[in-house]
Amino acid sequence: MATITAVETHDIRFPTSRELHGSDAMNPDPDYSAAYVVLRTDEGPDGHGFTFTIGRGNDLCVAAIQAHAPLVVGLDVDAMAADLGGFARRLVGDSQLRWLGPEKGVLHLAAGAIVNAAFDLVAKRAGLPVWRLLAEMSPEQIVDLVDWRYLSDALTREEALRLLRDAAPGRRDRTERLLAHGYPAYTTTPGWLGYSDERLVQLARAAVAEGFTQIKLKVGADLADDLRRLRLAREAVGPDVRIAVDANQRWDVAEAVAWMRELAPFDPYWIEEPTSPDDVLGHAAIRAAVRPIRVATGEHAQNRVVVKQFLAAGAVDVVQLDACRVAGVTENVAILLLAAKFGVPVCPHAGGVGLCEVVQHLAMFDYVAVSGSLTGRAIEYVDHLHEHFADPVQVRAGHYRVPLRAGIGAQLREETLRDFAYPHGAAWVDPDPRPAPAGPEAGAAR
Amino acid sequence: MATITAVETHDIRFPTSRELHGSDAMNPDPDYSAAYVVLRTDEGPDGHGFTFTIGRGNDLCVAAIQAHAPLVVGLDVDAMAADLGGFARRLVGDSQLRWLGPEKGVLHLAAGAIVNAAFDLVAKRAGLPVWRLLAEMSPEQIVDLVDWRYLSDALTREEALRLLRDAAPGRRDRTERLLAHGYPAYTTTPGWLGYSDERLVQLARAAVAEGFTQIKLKVGADLADDLRRLRLAREAVGPDVRIAVDANQRWDVAEAVAWMRELAPFDPYWIEEPTSPDDVLGHAAIRAAVRPIRVATGEHAQNRVVVKQFLAAGAVDVVQLDACRVAGVTENVAILLLAAKFGVPVCPHAGGVGLCEVVQHLAMFDYVAVSGSLTGRAIEYVDHLHEHFADPVQVRAGHYRVPLRAGIGAQLREETLRDFAYPHGAAWVDPDPRPAPAGPEAGAAR
Repeated sequence: MATITAVETHDIRFPTSRELHGSDAMNPDPDYSAAYVVLRTDEGPDGHGFTFTIGRGNDLCVAAIQAHAPLVVGLDVDAMAADLGGFARRLVGDSQLRWLGPEKGVLHLAAGAIVNAAFDLVAKRAGLPVWRLLAEMSPEQIVDLVDWRYLSDALTREEALRLLRDAAPGRRDRTERLLAHGYPAYTTTPGWLGYSDERLVQLARAAVAEGFTQIKLKVGADLADDLRRLRLAREAVGPDVRIAVDANQRWDVAEAVAWMRELAPFDPYWIEEPTSPDDVLGHAAIRAAVRPIRVATGEHAQNRVVVKQFLAAGAVDVVQLDACRVAGVTENVAILLLAAKFGVPVCPHAGGVGLCEVVQHLAMFDYVAVSGSLTGRAIEYVDHLHEHFADPVQVRAGHYRVPLRAGIGAQLREETLRDFAYPHGAAWVDPDPRPAPAGPEAGAAR
Repeated sequence: MATITAVETHDIRFPTSRELHGSDAMNPDPDYSAAYVVLRTDEGPDGHGFTFTIGRGNDLCVAAIQAHAPLVVGLDVDAMAADLGGFARRLVGDSQLRWLGPEKGVLHLAAGAIVNAAFDLVAKRAGLPVWRLLAEMSPEQIVDLVDWRYLSDALTREEALRLLRDAAPGRRDRTERLLAHGYPAYTTTPGWLGYSDERLVQLARAAVAEGFTQIKLKVGADLADDLRRLRLAREAVGPDVRIAVDANQRWDVAEAVAWMRELAPFDPYWIEEPTSPDDVLGHAAIRAAVRPIRVATGEHAQNRVVVKQFLAAGAVDVVQLDACRVAGVTENVAILLLAAKFGVPVCPHAGGVGLCEVVQHLAMFDYVAVSGSLTGRAIEYVDHLHEHFADPVQVRAGHYRVPLRAGIGAQLREETLRDFAYPHGAAWVDPDPRPAPAGPEAGAAR
């Protein structure tokens, strides 16, 4: 019988702003960061999780994780494993902490880190990657993960059960296909706003050569720049590769519509985050006006209630769930079920540190056990910072290879926890020259 | 020329859970708290502000206030006073901190404390209460306070200017009427869920005797209890006093509708927070089903974008803005303008510590310079913890007396900052017996 003995936290930050990795119209100089948590146990594996931020305020998420420690330390691991839904609901339901959201912002980011760490722990004890841990659960076990409060007007527990039971007979076949072919990816690597035209073109060509069939460009700061960059990208990839564009919440409704009409000749596949991530009705208006260009959002959707409304209002064509923004695996299971009910594809957000590693488990679980479909679906891929993870993602020929190691993929290397600790790690104390690469994979990172 | 020299913070908590003050269906044991900030200057008055929480996590708001200090310390006070809108937009717009919301949760609560402290500072230097500082601004100055991003599909700067200009000729008359008669209040004091039936009846009768024409009861935990309590309250106050009920987010949509049909025979005036504060479409569905009972929400509306949607979707009859949940005075000016545009009355939330003191300034400004109306409007009043403030609210004959002292009303007494500091103040180190009342007004608190 194992017990959680400590909630250990780390403030990990990468100085990505120095090279404009991750730059977009709203976030000109992010330092990709992880508020990192280890659930220490007295027997067997520990559980690792994190939430993703872009620098300042990462310490607040670390403190918010610690604020939940009294709800976690001392728990029996087997009991937690038997009721992960209840575990997550108790974290989110603390009545005094809940006031600070409810279910949004710093507290919810912290809950996401802890819930994902709990799944990492449970999966490691079971010897399974999280996608498979989930995909081998019964429909009843899956729906028990979900906090059903506030969902019943759009999806009931019983509807979700029917949906999962309908998908059950195909699980084995889809698992085999997934293991053989992987899961489709698209790449955001070419499109950061701070990159030069030359770098954009070079990286767009490289993406196609590597087998990607979709790339993504950041837009929204300057229309003339966007038109030029989109033209260059379209010339570089040809007519058959999808080019999604991402405005990172830059516009008002009318501005989004006008801007996208200008970009339409270059056949953008979707417009992502055209306006405030809180604006369900605004997205619905934009979607109606820019068809057939798709509308995508979700990385800042604060919780399942907002996603429910995006779907019920017909405001989105693509749901971009984030592994850490909501309260972790359990709330993302709710989001996958909602998307399946409304027949809207999920293309997870993964532009950050470690988001690729974690979110692939959710997409693969969705394919095997929930939607049963790959149509219109792809996981975002960005090719930096993977070298810091114990089990980095493998993307080949435009597909995520299926992770086979036990856990959720969130575990950072010990050297990274040491060198990128903020503010006293080597990367911050002696920023130039940068610290030695953390491992042999580092050479691949741009 | 004065400069802001320091952002000083205090973690202030009151042990209200010991007597079930503030108890409701979602918050059984709140310890009313303030993440308190003082903007210290090198010349003239300081600025005082806070954000309200219910206990655990107040430290996170304090830390989030400090996270903004680099954007505040060193500012020239005159320059800040000349562009309070720009000041607020820079606080909220820090791109790395913004990621943790955006514009919601702990970071936004912290921004609210700071923005309100800045208004306190500017008003004290001008020798004016904040309601009057605002009410004497030109329409152009008022619209410049607002962050117009994400609003233009519902309200443009130009529409707001027209609205304010239309209201301008009546400002002087309404100011005089306000000074003579005060602003209507309703009281939540009788209705906390943890109070006994006897206490409920006694306090409901006392409220009517004191001149209130509306009281509010907490509901949502148990239908039989609610029916009994509502019957007792209706018998106590008679048919002509309004009884609002407040479910504090307890229900799903269908549950809210069914529950309110049961309570309808007792003629509830509004149902407040029937479901998730994020659920615009859910509120719209509830409103359509429970008419003529009004739907009220807003104390947890995270920002102006959510309020915009509540109004545009016809989801609410009453907007309950909160002085500290959004980014302070500037964002609440946006909310008042939106409500005026849609013709929906604002009845501010004030169940907490110090919320009455601050929010009265917004309601009075609204009456004088924005909506120009008192119809269907009243400020919530709860009669505890006022003794801790340097300038406590005065409620007489069911009306808020107009505050005349300069500032926003947020300033706590020095003894309170000492005795209720968490965790080392006397109230927490030696909780029983409780510390001596902070001042002569303390006897009035229950």
